[in-house]
Amino acid sequence: MSKDNQKAQKIKPQTLRGFRDFLPDQMMAREHLIDTARFVYRSYGFAPIDTPALEYAEVLLGKGGDESDKQVFRFTDQGARDVAMRFDLTVPLARYSAQHIQELGTPFRRYHIGPVWRGERPARGRYREFMQCDFDTIGSDSNAADIETLMVINDLFERIGIERFTMRVNNRMVLNGLLAKNGLEDQAPGILRVLDKLSKIGRDKVVDEMVGKVGIRKEQADSVLDMAQLQGSPVEIMSSLEKMLSGNDVGEAGLANLRELFQTVSDCGLPEGRVSLDVSIARGLDYYTGTIYETFLGDLPEIGSVCSGGRYDNLAAKFTSQKLPGVGASLGLDRMLAAMEELGMTETATTPAPVLVTMFERSRASSYIAIARRLRAEGIGVEVFPEAKGIGKQMKYADRKGFKVALIAGADEFEAGNWQIKGLADGSQQEVTDNDVVDVVKSLLTAGKR
Amino acid sequence: MSKDNQKAQKIKPQTLRGFRDFLPDQMMAREHLIDTARFVYRSYGFAPIDTPALEYAEVLLGKGGDESDKQVFRFTDQGARDVAMRFDLTVPLARYSAQHIQELGTPFRRYHIGPVWRGERPARGRYREFMQCDFDTIGSDSNAADIETLMVINDLFERIGIERFTMRVNNRMVLNGLLAKNGLEDQAPGILRVLDKLSKIGRDKVVDEMVGKVGIRKEQADSVLDMAQLQGSPVEIMSSLEKMLSGNDVGEAGLANLRELFQTVSDCGLPEGRVSLDVSIARGLDYYTGTIYETFLGDLPEIGSVCSGGRYDNLAAKFTSQKLPGVGASLGLDRMLAAMEELGMTETATTPAPVLVTMFERSRASSYIAIARRLRAEGIGVEVFPEAKGIGKQMKYADRKGFKVALIAGADEFEAGNWQIKGLADGSQQEVTDNDVVDVVKSLLTAGKR
Repeated sequence: MSKDNQKAQKIKPQTLRGFRDFLPDQMMAREHLIDTARFVYRSYGFAPIDTPALEYAEVLLGKGGDESDKQVFRFTDQGARDVAMRFDLTVPLARYSAQHIQELGTPFRRYHIGPVWRGERPARGRYREFMQCDFDTIGSDSNAADIETLMVINDLFERIGIERFTMRVNNRMVLNGLLAKNGLEDQAPGILRVLDKLSKIGRDKVVDEMVGKVGIRKEQADSVLDMAQLQGSPVEIMSSLEKMLSGNDVGEAGLANLRELFQTVSDCGLPEGRVSLDVSIARGLDYYTGTIYETFLGDLPEIGSVCSGGRYDNLAAKFTSQKLPGVGASLGLDRMLAAMEELGMTETATTPAPVLVTMFERSRASSYIAIARRLRAEGIGVEVFPEAKGIGKQMKYADRKGFKVALIAGADEFEAGNWQIKGLADGSQQEVTDNDVVDVVKSLLTAGKR
Repeated sequence: MSKDNQKAQKIKPQTLRGFRDFLPDQMMAREHLIDTARFVYRSYGFAPIDTPALEYAEVLLGKGGDESDKQVFRFTDQGARDVAMRFDLTVPLARYSAQHIQELGTPFRRYHIGPVWRGERPARGRYREFMQCDFDTIGSDSNAADIETLMVINDLFERIGIERFTMRVNNRMVLNGLLAKNGLEDQAPGILRVLDKLSKIGRDKVVDEMVGKVGIRKEQADSVLDMAQLQGSPVEIMSSLEKMLSGNDVGEAGLANLRELFQTVSDCGLPEGRVSLDVSIARGLDYYTGTIYETFLGDLPEIGSVCSGGRYDNLAAKFTSQKLPGVGASLGLDRMLAAMEELGMTETATTPAPVLVTMFERSRASSYIAIARRLRAEGIGVEVFPEAKGIGKQMKYADRKGFKVALIAGADEFEAGNWQIKGLADGSQQEVTDNDVVDVVKSLLTAGKR
């Protein structure tokens, strides 16, 4: 077989369109963000769960062949079962809760971080495989759970290191109450569907669509928009809402929940303006029934909400007659990472270890490996370069990967029992005794953090 | 529609056979083990990567329709592409390395922790979806990388908290050298295939199969078994091997690598007996070409190797003509977790937060939420019970979930500015002022750890 033939037989190394490889620097940023989310979720008592990537198709899919069902990766497996890959973590949560809630008990607080798959047309920032990062409190209709959901979002963004962000809150009961008070309850679904586009298409087009598509009068549409666009502090808006909703039980109940939420926000000392009341947000039509959350970055509001959620009345109606109300939210991991990159918040190093032990004399590999182990025993990450390549090449490797400190020793140093220690940020170099290596490396790494 | 009809329409909440839901306690044990592996891998400079769950089938599958190909979940996607779910992390690593190695540079040290899918017949401890937990050093043929691979395994098991474990090492070049010296190089694949079963079927049956199936003489088979079953300390075995391999270049090169490995193990002060030399282990036929690793638990040797790997000559021959040698190993996550459970090493709590703030007065939700936030600011995980159910019910919830401390306050405590603090391990209860809550909770949690 000729060499050309061999080459021709190679298979092209490529990923499917819409799917991604993650290089080390990207993956380290992802792991760091996921760790932060896990830490915050756990600090509120949310416990991790996982569910299979593959489920029976009937578990995941709606009855009709609607648009979203067509995006599902669905096939017949080796055992002739009709199976599908999960397209979100909510439907699996519904199935899981129906199946295990007797054992789990309520309230059941879980987080779930994992990949989901959708055969969408790939576009900038839209992928066929992406992570979801959800937390929910299942089995309680108490507003205290709604308030803590908001606190989780707050702590999450603070811990990520975002200084300027706003959580926008609304309540679907308030929206429904307002529409009912205006005699528009029958048109509510259509009105809310159009209202949901407000931030994208603007007030004039929303009014046009409400008149043209939903079929309400222009004055009614204007009145809806006036309510939805109430401006002012939460206290001011709630005061206006109180008058508008007077006598409507559902609306007043929603308003009471908002009042308790904003009172707690104030009692807990969250920064002024951190939480706003936005009567225009509805977030989808059928699912949410109470509090609604969106989160916007102060420096990049145009990318939209990076953490959204809400309260729902009945999670698992498809699987069980046990009513399971709940409330939760989901961090948009890809959107958040893109934002952090744009804001210069992601590390550029491609190594998770700050120290490189270079290899000068191949016959002394054991010494290089041993010093690395001594540093690791002190909690310091260390990579040992495995080959005695030219020291220039090894230092280039160290620079490219973003190591902070390099250790070097050749015959002279081994004879003297010393190590050369290079600080790669400032180009410093010092020769220290074997005994002092750990302390000097530690101080160089600490200095680098200041 | 009658109630019966509604019930009949429910979809049965169930997972596919061979697939698993993870309940909170199981998932916390998994996350803890994965965190430990990540910590150790990172401390050696291995960086995380990820690859898609779905790839072109031609990327993942061999040319022939052999047994393992039949287990792959493979289907035609919405775009008529022939796709498959990854069945291990090694083939994706090969594809990934071929695609990105110019950008990554060598040595390329990566870890990859993620699910893989195989349509195997489900059995006890065998699943159709399971996690792999791999680390590899790509692009170097230096034995220093082999030695560090061993050190990673050592540190991983120490950090998991396993006190008694043995790493068994061998080198395929030594095995091949021994067979060549006995004039058996042509039968090597067959002999090794049978030798691989030694621990399962015993010496007599191995000899029978070597004679009956491979077609070598009984004296030759006995001679192979005598070599493979050499007993003694690594130094003693290497001394015997030196004589046996004399003049065989490949075998002597393998032996030199083993010598350097065991010398470093000794220089680094690993406990006596931690690493043994087992000439009988071969681990599969075609893939490994140098050092081989297996790891056995001292208290559960019968479950087999829980961390295995080895050196290979050429990772990505299917995709590139660039030769990429490497060495690595893989932690058997499910097997390890089963072992830890059997050894009583896993936690039983189903909450990641140690403190429960009970809710006595619904109207004071804001106070309960605020004290929880104060504790969280000190790094303490706290769940707030969202409803003012009977305190007995809430304490039962606390016991069942494994909380360590519970806070209680009703009208009297709020008036006095106090909290009741219950230690759930020892049943203690004390009333402390609002100012002292954080310190008292901290001391209760620390005491519980002793």
